[in-house]
Amino acid sequence: MVINAVNSIITQPKPNGEEMTILIKNAGYLIRKYNKIENDVDILIEGNHISKIARSIKAPKNAEIINAKGKLVAPGFVNAHTHLYQNLLKGMNDRLSLTDWVQEITFPLCNTVSTKLTKNESKKIAYLWSLLAGIEAVKNGISCLLDMDLKHIDVIRAWNDLGLRGVCARTVVDKWVPDDLSEASAEQYKKIEELIEAYHLTPQDSPLISVFIGPSTIFTCSEELLKWIAKTAEKYDTGVQIHVSETNWEVESIKKERGLRPVEYLDKIGFLSPRVSLVHCVHLTEKEISIIAESGATVVHCPKSNMKLGSGTAPVVEMMKQGIPIALGTDGSASNDLLDMFEEMRFAALLQKVKNEDATVIGGSDVYKMATVESARVCQNNAGIIEEGKLADLIIVDVNQVHSIPTHDIINTLVYCSKANDVDTVIINGKIVMRERVIQTIDEKDTLRELCEMRKYFERKGVKF
Amino acid sequence: MVINAVNSIITQPKPNGEEMTILIKNAGYLIRKYNKIENDVDILIEGNHISKIARSIKAPKNAEIINAKGKLVAPGFVNAHTHLYQNLLKGMNDRLSLTDWVQEITFPLCNTVSTKLTKNESKKIAYLWSLLAGIEAVKNGISCLLDMDLKHIDVIRAWNDLGLRGVCARTVVDKWVPDDLSEASAEQYKKIEELIEAYHLTPQDSPLISVFIGPSTIFTCSEELLKWIAKTAEKYDTGVQIHVSETNWEVESIKKERGLRPVEYLDKIGFLSPRVSLVHCVHLTEKEISIIAESGATVVHCPKSNMKLGSGTAPVVEMMKQGIPIALGTDGSASNDLLDMFEEMRFAALLQKVKNEDATVIGGSDVYKMATVESARVCQNNAGIIEEGKLADLIIVDVNQVHSIPTHDIINTLVYCSKANDVDTVIINGKIVMRERVIQTIDEKDTLRELCEMRKYFERKGVKF
Repeated sequence: MVINAVNSIITQPKPNGEEMTILIKNAGYLIRKYNKIENDVDILIEGNHISKIARSIKAPKNAEIINAKGKLVAPGFVNAHTHLYQNLLKGMNDRLSLTDWVQEITFPLCNTVSTKLTKNESKKIAYLWSLLAGIEAVKNGISCLLDMDLKHIDVIRAWNDLGLRGVCARTVVDKWVPDDLSEASAEQYKKIEELIEAYHLTPQDSPLISVFIGPSTIFTCSEELLKWIAKTAEKYDTGVQIHVSETNWEVESIKKERGLRPVEYLDKIGFLSPRVSLVHCVHLTEKEISIIAESGATVVHCPKSNMKLGSGTAPVVEMMKQGIPIALGTDGSASNDLLDMFEEMRFAALLQKVKNEDATVIGGSDVYKMATVESARVCQNNAGIIEEGKLADLIIVDVNQVHSIPTHDIINTLVYCSKANDVDTVIINGKIVMRERVIQTIDEKDTLRELCEMRKYFERKGVKF
Repeated sequence: MVINAVNSIITQPKPNGEEMTILIKNAGYLIRKYNKIENDVDILIEGNHISKIARSIKAPKNAEIINAKGKLVAPGFVNAHTHLYQNLLKGMNDRLSLTDWVQEITFPLCNTVSTKLTKNESKKIAYLWSLLAGIEAVKNGISCLLDMDLKHIDVIRAWNDLGLRGVCARTVVDKWVPDDLSEASAEQYKKIEELIEAYHLTPQDSPLISVFIGPSTIFTCSEELLKWIAKTAEKYDTGVQIHVSETNWEVESIKKERGLRPVEYLDKIGFLSPRVSLVHCVHLTEKEISIIAESGATVVHCPKSNMKLGSGTAPVVEMMKQGIPIALGTDGSASNDLLDMFEEMRFAALLQKVKNEDATVIGGSDVYKMATVESARVCQNNAGIIEEGKLADLIIVDVNQVHSIPTHDIINTLVYCSKANDVDTVIINGKIVMRERVIQTIDEKDTLRELCEMRKYFERKGVKF
């Protein structure tokens, strides 16, 4: 039978297991951050953090040694916005605008999971889609992702089993969506606070997990709900993520309903702050860009998704000029198909160059900064940079492939030439989650097989995905 | 010592060796063409062509059997425009406009090869860059490419050794470029005709090679030269490829110098015909689109290059509406970094969706058609489709990867989800050139090692690339 994904977990090493010591020897290139590169150094990892960076570090007793000769060591990528459940929807109809796409592609799956499956089935499918997406992410060099999800606690279980760092931005909506997805009762509010208390305030018990609050959009949230979210996030000192100004349709409907443009409205109700990340921001006025800059909020740019849905091109260069931190996200697989930060960086750079008809406006190091430092800022984690004391979230990349040599500028090589498949090792929170392209914590083949079996099982029940 | 690339060639199988019979069994999916898909079929290849497609074909004696169970068999991609020498320049400065980029990035390498190296050295480096780019292309599922190159005969030698189908679009220019690259004497004309006679008119001796004429641009060619090219192409019944309307700067300078917009000018001098492919076509008026449609010429779209150089976005949707065949090219690695048709298809689709702010204007099958059928049309070869009697240029792709399952629409899976690395086998002209990601004709590692050694050797001589 299907649905026994738990059995596919190999028990060692566990993310919460004993402390490890890892010594990465002779990194050909070390990208400490987007503008700081060294050659031929060793990196020592003790417990969950980087403890020393120097030449010729003597291996401590029991250290796991990784030879990185000629290879690149860099911070793991942080995917600052995605929806993992959409991993089941990749490659579906690609000729739909955002609103049709929501009605025809994403809502039916959400509805199926909420109403047509048993509780046990929906828990298991959420676990499996999270593993599927998580494995894809790790194989692409992503060490942390932010998942804007409705209410599937099994997502967190999958991340812990895989050893992936994740931010669960628990979606809350009370308008526009089908009834079964809406929730704004005092009881629902309590559940969100319980989730934060269980996983966000307990870093010792769940070091890989944070919980943010994710009001989906302005048009799916009442003003009362948005205000409660801002207050609750402050109370628990956590983050908030919201989709803003993705389409012209959204801007017009917010203007009509709330009397102001989206960013002006959020400013008016006191919603904006450095703990808030605004996803998309495609359609902004100069005034709105200034409001965001003053608020300290971060913008998450999702170029492939904005392109695929025909939403428009975000004014990234203008926002950068105003000093707004820009992070990078793939968005979900229904509007991107891939969770691949290499492609996302290339799309981000090339889209701005062509939008401005000026190749000089943005460069490889700018988009690399988005995918590491700024995305880590959104996720509020101490990563995105390789320095002593930082979290040991890093990747080793083979830059000696036929498509990456010769190297002229290692950041440009990584941004424009390297491919997800060139990532050979991924370390998250001081644990080796992938080594030589083999996931160490979960049996990848078993997971894929179980997913295919589950798909057939649902099909027999008349439920398609 | 360096420069002994010839030694890296494994002698078996040779592209011109004995005839082979290959039976591909149980293809999970067969894409015959962009709109025609079958499941669970066998494909028989005899000599250089596809001889039978059916279920359960009995294996002929001595047939090489390839098991494609659950995998996808599809036409090899055709890259309709590139400059292989730029493979040495990937990842260089990414903040330059086209004209600065030509002066600072591409001319210096051309100049080095023409003037600073011995004849033997420049022959060997041309051989090596062609192998490097050729191996990259094959590993990405490209079975044929069109290389617009200056005059390096060793490119052809590399293609033959690798077993890659190639169109050598011999570049001819007599204006604007540095003196050492210009050539318009009767002696030069004669050399071009000799090249065509040697390789294009001898399909028995060089089945993989065609020779086109490649006037680089209008502004680098006198009217006399353009007219000679049109006449010579007709005389030899061969193709012509030219860059047209890549930048606004080009359009303005042609208007000033020749009194008309570029396409209007080419039409006036009788240059346009179905044998001509026009690369880029970013800046066109409605009138120019109509002229192209009436002429029967093909357009080669290079989205990543146009984006990276900030040139602009070609009116692809408008050209499609007028029935102009649109092919797809990566352009050279200095303005793209990769020779990857998977990424190129994704960029092509997403760029038009965002340009038009309408997701419905173009779909996966449209860009897939560009990368196969229409690019094969540009190269004038009988491929791009899998049918009995067609050239056996095909690829086998693993579509069961974590990033490609579940599958909802196999063309969309290939276009939006699959990665170059998922191509496991490449057959060109009936020969297996790559099998399970290992190049069969050339030692890949030796080639990369030789290239790195050559780079060091030149550096010691004060020549950088």
